[in-house]
Amino acid sequence: MLSHSLDFAAWRQARQDEVEQALSTWVPADAPAGLGEAMRYAVLDGGKRLRPLLVLATSDAVGGLRTAALRAACSVELIHAYSLVHDDMPCMDNDVLRRGKPTVHVRFGEAQALLAGDALQALAFELLVPGDDSVPADMAALLCRLLAQAAGATGMAGGQAVDLASVGILLDQPALEAMHRKKTGALLKASVIMGAATGRASPEALVQLGRYGAALGLAFQVVDDVLDVIADSVTLGKTAGKDAAADKPTFVSLMGLAQAQSYAERVLDEAHAALDQSGLDDTAILHALADWVGRRAY
Amino acid sequence: MLSHSLDFAAWRQARQDEVEQALSTWVPADAPAGLGEAMRYAVLDGGKRLRPLLVLATSDAVGGLRTAALRAACSVELIHAYSLVHDDMPCMDNDVLRRGKPTVHVRFGEAQALLAGDALQALAFELLVPGDDSVPADMAALLCRLLAQAAGATGMAGGQAVDLASVGILLDQPALEAMHRKKTGALLKASVIMGAATGRASPEALVQLGRYGAALGLAFQVVDDVLDVIADSVTLGKTAGKDAAADKPTFVSLMGLAQAQSYAERVLDEAHAALDQSGLDDTAILHALADWVGRRAY
Repeated sequence: MLSHSLDFAAWRQARQDEVEQALSTWVPADAPAGLGEAMRYAVLDGGKRLRPLLVLATSDAVGGLRTAALRAACSVELIHAYSLVHDDMPCMDNDVLRRGKPTVHVRFGEAQALLAGDALQALAFELLVPGDDSVPADMAALLCRLLAQAAGATGMAGGQAVDLASVGILLDQPALEAMHRKKTGALLKASVIMGAATGRASPEALVQLGRYGAALGLAFQVVDDVLDVIADSVTLGKTAGKDAAADKPTFVSLMGLAQAQSYAERVLDEAHAALDQSGLDDTAILHALADWVGRRAY
Repeated sequence: MLSHSLDFAAWRQARQDEVEQALSTWVPADAPAGLGEAMRYAVLDGGKRLRPLLVLATSDAVGGLRTAALRAACSVELIHAYSLVHDDMPCMDNDVLRRGKPTVHVRFGEAQALLAGDALQALAFELLVPGDDSVPADMAALLCRLLAQAAGATGMAGGQAVDLASVGILLDQPALEAMHRKKTGALLKASVIMGAATGRASPEALVQLGRYGAALGLAFQVVDDVLDVIADSVTLGKTAGKDAAADKPTFVSLMGLAQAQSYAERVLDEAHAALDQSGLDDTAILHALADWVGRRAY
């Protein structure tokens, strides 16, 4: 078990470095009038890179195409990064601290933050269609479709709209889960499915990977709500206690702290069970990623 | 010549109706928490649909695939629409009137406007990859690539960043044209090239269509600057005199009104010449579109 943990830590570090390097290559430093600088500030040298790691691990599990997986990994991270930039703006969550640094609009101004987010979304799709033969066209088209659906009105953006409309409203658990299934769950699940789309997965494996991705997405959010209560801002790298202060419904406000913690465990069990039923040969890293999400401290 | 004009007017009306109908189908009414309503408000029942018309006319000129062309036409309009929503926001141009109606953030609030713009960009890419066999995968991937490049840091978003940084600065004509080549020119040119990508165009035709698209984009902007001076807000459907009030460089402030008007004519001549050298059989509609851009009153 110890060596297993060490293996995962080494795998994670190697892949995080690979993603960081690729993002640094692909997010343009020379975009005009400071735009490139704002884009790079929003993306580089920060974050756990959970979504890229999910893409890469799933791609490995299905014997996927490495070049496509790395592009897909970076594309989901760019969508995630742009959503944070826009979400932090004064008209949304009005947050000033992210990953321990001033947020993009604090550093570069609101207009530049808005444009940087917009340009990051476009770049996410551009990465998926490299214009050479490194990613087959049918795979590139499928990856674009999966990403667009996860990012748009039926996915992340739609979930953010529901979140905005939920302030001060007593959501029940199904409503709260439906909101998070879109807001954060759609892109986390898409990371898994896009990883699978870089290779060949049986229909049964795809179903179980989808179940794994959905459970992992839900567990991520429950743990996020728990951490918002029990961790401090320095550890989180963002403002703690924010949700409660904003009168937003959370799993902790709905079911209490201890219940939320045990609910996270049950949801993680579901993620592990899905992998066990996928028929895939080597899911050790995907199992370890689920545990990493469930037991993280920030 | 009269019948020619009537032909164009009939073609334009028919295609505008087709685009309006398609957009009404594809922009979701049921996106959650008012997001769909804001998206539809931003897109439907307004605008000249110049970009879609360019896609459709170019596709026709190269014998392109109609299903792909209609999707591409709507995708460029969604990118255009999202850019207007974000551009009108208080942190950018802070405009309250667009197409004769209150802007999206005035009507739905800033947060919803931000999300609606974000979701419209995602939808633009989703339209290009329909997930059935109505658009071949290699064509869909190419269309995504062209759209992403035109919308992102090297295209529209980059041009907006330059525009932001240019307030109160005396740009010379090359710098002003470079800014507009990105800010509005990239998407207009992409509309032409994406139309061409739905069919088969010879290398020479592609070069000349690119030249046509670039000239048309420049003419569009010069005329825009002229109209900002000589037209009133009711005719324009947006706030007139805005650029001068914002101390932004324009072709009129740079070269004077009469010179700007004759410059627009010369640039239009370039667009017509490119079509004449394209080797394409039927470019009547593309010629008429250039004249429509050059002689519009709003």
